[in-house]
Amino acid sequence: MKKVLSFWILVIFVAGSASGQSSGDSLMIKKISDEIFMNGQAYNNLRFLCKKVGPRLSGSPGAALAVEQTARMLREAGADTVYLQPCMVPRWVRGEKEIGRASLTDGKTIPLNIVALGNAVGTPAAGIAAGIVEVRSFQELDALGADKVKGKIVFYNFRMDPRHINTFRAYGEAGVYRSQGPSRAAALGAIGVIVRTLSPVLDDNPHTGATRYDEDKPKIPAVAISTNGAVQLSQLIGNGKVKSVYLKTNCKMLEDVLSYNVVGEIRGSEKPEEVITVGGHLDSWDLAEGAHDDGTGCMQSIEIIRAFKALGVKPKRSVRAVMFMNEENGLRGGTKYAEVAKTEDRKFIMALESDAGGFTPRGFGFSANPVQKARILSWQPLFKNYGALEFNEGGGGADIGPLRPLGTALIGLNPDSQRYMDLHHAKTDVFEAVSERELNLGTVVMAAMVYLVSEYGL
Amino acid sequence: MKKVLSFWILVIFVAGSASGQSSGDSLMIKKISDEIFMNGQAYNNLRFLCKKVGPRLSGSPGAALAVEQTARMLREAGADTVYLQPCMVPRWVRGEKEIGRASLTDGKTIPLNIVALGNAVGTPAAGIAAGIVEVRSFQELDALGADKVKGKIVFYNFRMDPRHINTFRAYGEAGVYRSQGPSRAAALGAIGVIVRTLSPVLDDNPHTGATRYDEDKPKIPAVAISTNGAVQLSQLIGNGKVKSVYLKTNCKMLEDVLSYNVVGEIRGSEKPEEVITVGGHLDSWDLAEGAHDDGTGCMQSIEIIRAFKALGVKPKRSVRAVMFMNEENGLRGGTKYAEVAKTEDRKFIMALESDAGGFTPRGFGFSANPVQKARILSWQPLFKNYGALEFNEGGGGADIGPLRPLGTALIGLNPDSQRYMDLHHAKTDVFEAVSERELNLGTVVMAAMVYLVSEYGL
Repeated sequence: MKKVLSFWILVIFVAGSASGQSSGDSLMIKKISDEIFMNGQAYNNLRFLCKKVGPRLSGSPGAALAVEQTARMLREAGADTVYLQPCMVPRWVRGEKEIGRASLTDGKTIPLNIVALGNAVGTPAAGIAAGIVEVRSFQELDALGADKVKGKIVFYNFRMDPRHINTFRAYGEAGVYRSQGPSRAAALGAIGVIVRTLSPVLDDNPHTGATRYDEDKPKIPAVAISTNGAVQLSQLIGNGKVKSVYLKTNCKMLEDVLSYNVVGEIRGSEKPEEVITVGGHLDSWDLAEGAHDDGTGCMQSIEIIRAFKALGVKPKRSVRAVMFMNEENGLRGGTKYAEVAKTEDRKFIMALESDAGGFTPRGFGFSANPVQKARILSWQPLFKNYGALEFNEGGGGADIGPLRPLGTALIGLNPDSQRYMDLHHAKTDVFEAVSERELNLGTVVMAAMVYLVSEYGL
Repeated sequence: MKKVLSFWILVIFVAGSASGQSSGDSLMIKKISDEIFMNGQAYNNLRFLCKKVGPRLSGSPGAALAVEQTARMLREAGADTVYLQPCMVPRWVRGEKEIGRASLTDGKTIPLNIVALGNAVGTPAAGIAAGIVEVRSFQELDALGADKVKGKIVFYNFRMDPRHINTFRAYGEAGVYRSQGPSRAAALGAIGVIVRTLSPVLDDNPHTGATRYDEDKPKIPAVAISTNGAVQLSQLIGNGKVKSVYLKTNCKMLEDVLSYNVVGEIRGSEKPEEVITVGGHLDSWDLAEGAHDDGTGCMQSIEIIRAFKALGVKPKRSVRAVMFMNEENGLRGGTKYAEVAKTEDRKFIMALESDAGGFTPRGFGFSANPVQKARILSWQPLFKNYGALEFNEGGGGADIGPLRPLGTALIGLNPDSQRYMDLHHAKTDVFEAVSERELNLGTVVMAAMVYLVSEYGL
């Protein structure tokens, strides 16, 4: 394409009330945008986080280093105050690489491309071997009943529905097999579970992610298999060729360890007692760099502090960038943050989380009361030039969810969702998968939202 | 991110007239979308085009193979008629890899990371060596005047402005140095030109692209230098360390050769004489796979034919998928298509081009008369679920531009522009840089627009 398009004469969008916005706000947002695109550090910081810190599952040495390094980044960004907020976190370890294979009726064996699910128990040292039953739903599982499931390994082969335009919807539908699958199968006597990877693409990358055991059911080993592996295994089962399946996983849950949320604050110039929280989660899965999940959210939050300081913006209300610890397999950081918030003599008016990847922004989802909503909606036209006009009901973020009882308006950044599930919780979630401009544009619209709330309150 | 968001309760967008749309249209578009996401072949076809055909600059063996293979794809997609439309195209060849180096005052030399600009003349066999003058604008060049430019190599070091949210705007501003720079410099007696790569990212990939010589000026060699290379060279010049620069390029323009536009058509069931054209360009630069530029546009156009046929959609008006040849360095295919159209006893009511990359769609730009515009705008709400609500004035595509005098409404697909310029005309424009879901979603909104025009006319 070499033609220069004439563009940006937007003929349609004049929806939304213009109350509460001024050309001054528009100009300030443009200044913030220019600063971020000209001098932004989020991308460089993300490179450091991914390449020098790397994987940072809660309680790991990587997580500890990430705490130290993001505190440094916040100080360098110019935050007035930087501190660590202690919280105990679970410490799940994968151990040696998992082994999976299927023994076929013709005497051959084929390897299964698997990884243990997060928080799962490991197999005995000798592994487990058993017949396999494939189901595509809990309905199919229950129809089989204990007779056919007892002593077996259950294979949940639910394909993420590619027809949903928003991939989070497909993720929600399929995710129940990862979270509830092991206990549902154990209830019928299964001894292990294989879950098809939650990804819309066919490839060889198994994606991990947390599973959740019911306390009243036996805890059985659980793994994810790559999408290509799931297709192959299903064909073999369908053709009656699988005699048994062998799984060996080495994961276990250790004792809780001390970790931290990392907080950097700019004190409000007029109403410092009103706090705006903007954050992402600092922990990642052990087998990924955690670039999009959620290095980007963390780096964007730090960048907002940097940009405000660089521009001399003195927000009327206090702005806190928070790197939450342990979103992936415990939510202890988010829970602790809200617990402490309840004891602080301050008002937590809004919390914005970016935890859906560092992709080009589409808009926001928000959970708020009608007055807060009306105020937020009045700002919508200010986001037109930045392509973030989708203001949707519902949303927020796992880490900021616990603030809801405090009356905090919760806002989630909604980036475009098309590429996220391809790499989510997989080893392909690396720095190279992030676009610098997409990351920056996401930061711009987050910064704009923080700025508006800091100016006008909610 | 593990939380399942509640979403899609869109609270704002009820803008735009609802006339001309029905729930039937909405359902049909959903069916088309489902078909493309479930059974789409655009991604597989693109893999073939990029990996089995590869670079396909006009007149090259790759281009000839691309003609043959896309004709096959159109037949397999089920087009009623597939044919080749002959056109003569320029045949520019790069020759051996270019050499560039700077001789420094301390006796050292450093390599310059360069590629010849498309359509440029080569240097003499011995190369050229001369002093270098750096400018950041034509104004600076003209201020220097012939005295300081004569006999020199001019280095246009214009940084693409990262502050523009739409990267095409930055591309437009910077692109004049690539297209007009050589002749403007030659007018002042320069003997060669180095242009900073048109990319917002700092890396080592020089991007090529066509330059255009004024017929009344000497034609001088012209190369692009990578952005990192430009920064380094500028620093050395600023420090007075560059004694001279050596360039050797081996490119030349050969005689025109016969090539083709590739056309596949579904004949309209009610008004076959009214033709809807949907296309992309089949040629690419010689040093790229031409995935986003413009393999995606071609594969999307073929996919529309496939999806319509697979669903049994019988468009009332004729739908033509067109792979235009020679957009990059001549526009002969687009010109020929309009020339032939003038002689056909048919009415070319609308042409839609996808030539801004296979990224997630944001909307469309259109150049049309008021009646056509009003009709198109009435359909806008149908694009809400697909995130393509930005209906902008202006736009179309280089290849379909020549149809304008026929009264054809021109529409350009506008995907998100953040990542395009990073890889545009560079060796990094490869299959792996394309997201299957983004590609498919772009196809869905193109197919929806084609469907609506085929149902209702313009």
